Amino acid sequence: MHELISWASIPENSDFSIYNLPWGIFSTRGSEPRIGVAIGDHILDMPIVASTGILDEFSIPDSIWMKPTLNDFIKLGKNVTSSVRTRLQQELCAPESSLRKMREVFVNMENANMHLPVFVRDYTDFYSSIEHATNVGKMFRDPENALLPNWKHLPVGYHGRASSIVVSGTPVKRPNGQTKPGDGSPVYGPSKALDFELEMAFIVGQENMLGDPISIHHAEEYIFGMVLFNDWSARDIQKWEYVPLGPFLGKSFASSVSPWIVTMEALEPYRVASPVQDPKPLPYLKHSGFNNFDIYLEVSITPAGGDEKRVTRSNFKYMYWSMVQQLAHHTVNGCNVSIGDMMASGTISGSEPDSYGSMLELSWGGKKPITMPDGSQRSFLLNGDTVTMRGYAGRENRKVGFGTVTGQII
Amino acid sequence: MHELISWASIPENSDFSIYNLPWGIFSTRGSEPRIGVAIGDHILDMPIVASTGILDEFSIPDSIWMKPTLNDFIKLGKNVTSSVRTRLQQELCAPESSLRKMREVFVNMENANMHLPVFVRDYTDFYSSIEHATNVGKMFRDPENALLPNWKHLPVGYHGRASSIVVSGTPVKRPNGQTKPGDGSPVYGPSKALDFELEMAFIVGQENMLGDPISIHHAEEYIFGMVLFNDWSARDIQKWEYVPLGPFLGKSFASSVSPWIVTMEALEPYRVASPVQDPKPLPYLKHSGFNNFDIYLEVSITPAGGDEKRVTRSNFKYMYWSMVQQLAHHTVNGCNVSIGDMMASGTISGSEPDSYGSMLELSWGGKKPITMPDGSQRSFLLNGDTVTMRGYAGRENRKVGFGTVTGQII
Repeated sequence: MHELISWASIPENSDFSIYNLPWGIFSTRGSEPRIGVAIGDHILDMPIVASTGILDEFSIPDSIWMKPTLNDFIKLGKNVTSSVRTRLQQELCAPESSLRKMREVFVNMENANMHLPVFVRDYTDFYSSIEHATNVGKMFRDPENALLPNWKHLPVGYHGRASSIVVSGTPVKRPNGQTKPGDGSPVYGPSKALDFELEMAFIVGQENMLGDPISIHHAEEYIFGMVLFNDWSARDIQKWEYVPLGPFLGKSFASSVSPWIVTMEALEPYRVASPVQDPKPLPYLKHSGFNNFDIYLEVSITPAGGDEKRVTRSNFKYMYWSMVQQLAHHTVNGCNVSIGDMMASGTISGSEPDSYGSMLELSWGGKKPITMPDGSQRSFLLNGDTVTMRGYAGRENRKVGFGTVTGQII
Repeated sequence: MHELISWASIPENSDFSIYNLPWGIFSTRGSEPRIGVAIGDHILDMPIVASTGILDEFSIPDSIWMKPTLNDFIKLGKNVTSSVRTRLQQELCAPESSLRKMREVFVNMENANMHLPVFVRDYTDFYSSIEHATNVGKMFRDPENALLPNWKHLPVGYHGRASSIVVSGTPVKRPNGQTKPGDGSPVYGPSKALDFELEMAFIVGQENMLGDPISIHHAEEYIFGMVLFNDWSARDIQKWEYVPLGPFLGKSFASSVSPWIVTMEALEPYRVASPVQDPKPLPYLKHSGFNNFDIYLEVSITPAGGDEKRVTRSNFKYMYWSMVQQLAHHTVNGCNVSIGDMMASGTISGSEPDSYGSMLELSWGGKKPITMPDGSQRSFLLNGDTVTMRGYAGRENRKVGFGTVTGQII
């Protein structure tokens, strides 16, 4: 990776270095949502960038930059979207760039509202961390046989609710629902076991036809980029409802995503090997080479008016099943995917107790509450708590970061 | 219900009597998809109907009639859509109607292609037939405790795949996938246990805000109409994959719907009481009055080049949980629904073996194969088989029918 030196003002350690350039949808007061690119503490206002003519070679209709989602832009194809990103990178490094004199091109992030970056056609949630699946299995089922028999043979997943995916910063109402306390009768009321789940999601960038599976060897071409994903969960609702058809209202009240889609091109230098899979997967799930990504992840909780406390550190590289395996499996039956589909990883837990990706695991089902800076304890989330997830690959002036996904419980 | 006598030519026993007037999207050769209304063997070409001025009082933009889905029309609200339907009914009964002389208003169904009537934002599948849940529980779990403990306390449901919902007549490719035969290792290959599921689905006609549940007392206002729904299922794939997160690839390869949305106004005369619910549901699920609908249902199988055989007769009125209970439950956690959402009933089985709604139940897991007219046997579906579902309320010249939903296995 050759070194890039930008004339743009980019703070040291910014998530949005010149090596990143993620895509998002933003608006400023009194203006319509439109496409932007994060650079340091600023957003490149893409309709203005395009109006300078520096992207004319790509023949992109002006209207694309003014859309309220990235779907139509992504539909242009990786050839185009990746080339546009490279062009912007060059321009931000060229001392003579016409952008350099145009202050209106750079919108201060503090003055921008971020929106959901894509229209999510369908949302799928996987369950691909072996540590998380094992922890949950130990707590809820049989400690001796924590993993179910299918788990190592296929990336277990389920369909989630697309309509309730919200952008970072959206407050999350504590859900009401039906739960069954102990041996008593079912009751209705607010969830008493509200949890976060530390996940990442990839965004589908190309469609297949219904009936035509995506081979694992081509699956990468169908992945546009990634976001941080907080799969809020009401454990008590989930526990009572989930047999035999899986999670439903325990999840569908909200899922929060970070606003910037980091491209696979930006993450390319951070490829790492997947964990060894034993037993070996069936041929349609078999791949070689480096199919995971080294992305540091952390979660903190900030009580209302209190101090932030980091409660876990994890890494995307712990995933047992890779994104290309997930996508090949998802479509092996002919299921069609759409541009803007989100496919979440499932909770990403590491092997150590301080790397678990949910309160359920961190507090081990409430048996080991977490102590906050103000002395209060948490088995699950309290009203007023803000959960913040962060994630990045690389370091110093080469960081490829995701920013944050936050949400306050109200 | 006063008697309506139409001047239009409507065959006796037509599903599409003057009392029905369901909405759909059709096209003719060389023309764009647009809104139509079924009447007898014809389709009212709504852009042409609107151009006569007879709907001017509703101030509906002309562009709405030329949309490729009904979503924007439905968004006008029940006040409007129901009044338009009543206006059409009056016009089709008025001897002096201007439509009577305009032959171009009536498109012969034989010359029309039907399209998916709505863009399905999210799709949910319930599991609300007590006979079906009991049958499946007996076969797969414990015959003595076939119903799981939550089943009588809440309408169990799960999120399904919206992208693979197709309109009646679309061929269905037999899915490949991972299955686990007996005690052996998992294998990859075509499903050997392809099944239909006889269901109906309702279409959501009004949105709620994320965080704002829909009370059971207002839920009817959010239901626009209904369709027949064939939830194709690959039982062998489903059986291996479904723990602990529910059905996934065993369902997501295709679901077929009938093309005409029958409105709740048309079904109003066919209300019947729900089955008695014991134990009584929690207050948020409690309703009184007649909340089910008497809709006769049947399924037949036609082998390639062979004769059709009816394999089951059922009725929507067998549903234990009503549609309004489903919708109140779905949103009790604040989950937002969208116009065009489809919510399917789950397989609708009656209490007698000849009223079961799936091959799994009809052949009792393959133990009692069905004999076809040509002497061949079916435990599950074979390639070339066409499955046809029919459904209607009422009779003779007052039928409120759904037409058919068909699909051939290829």
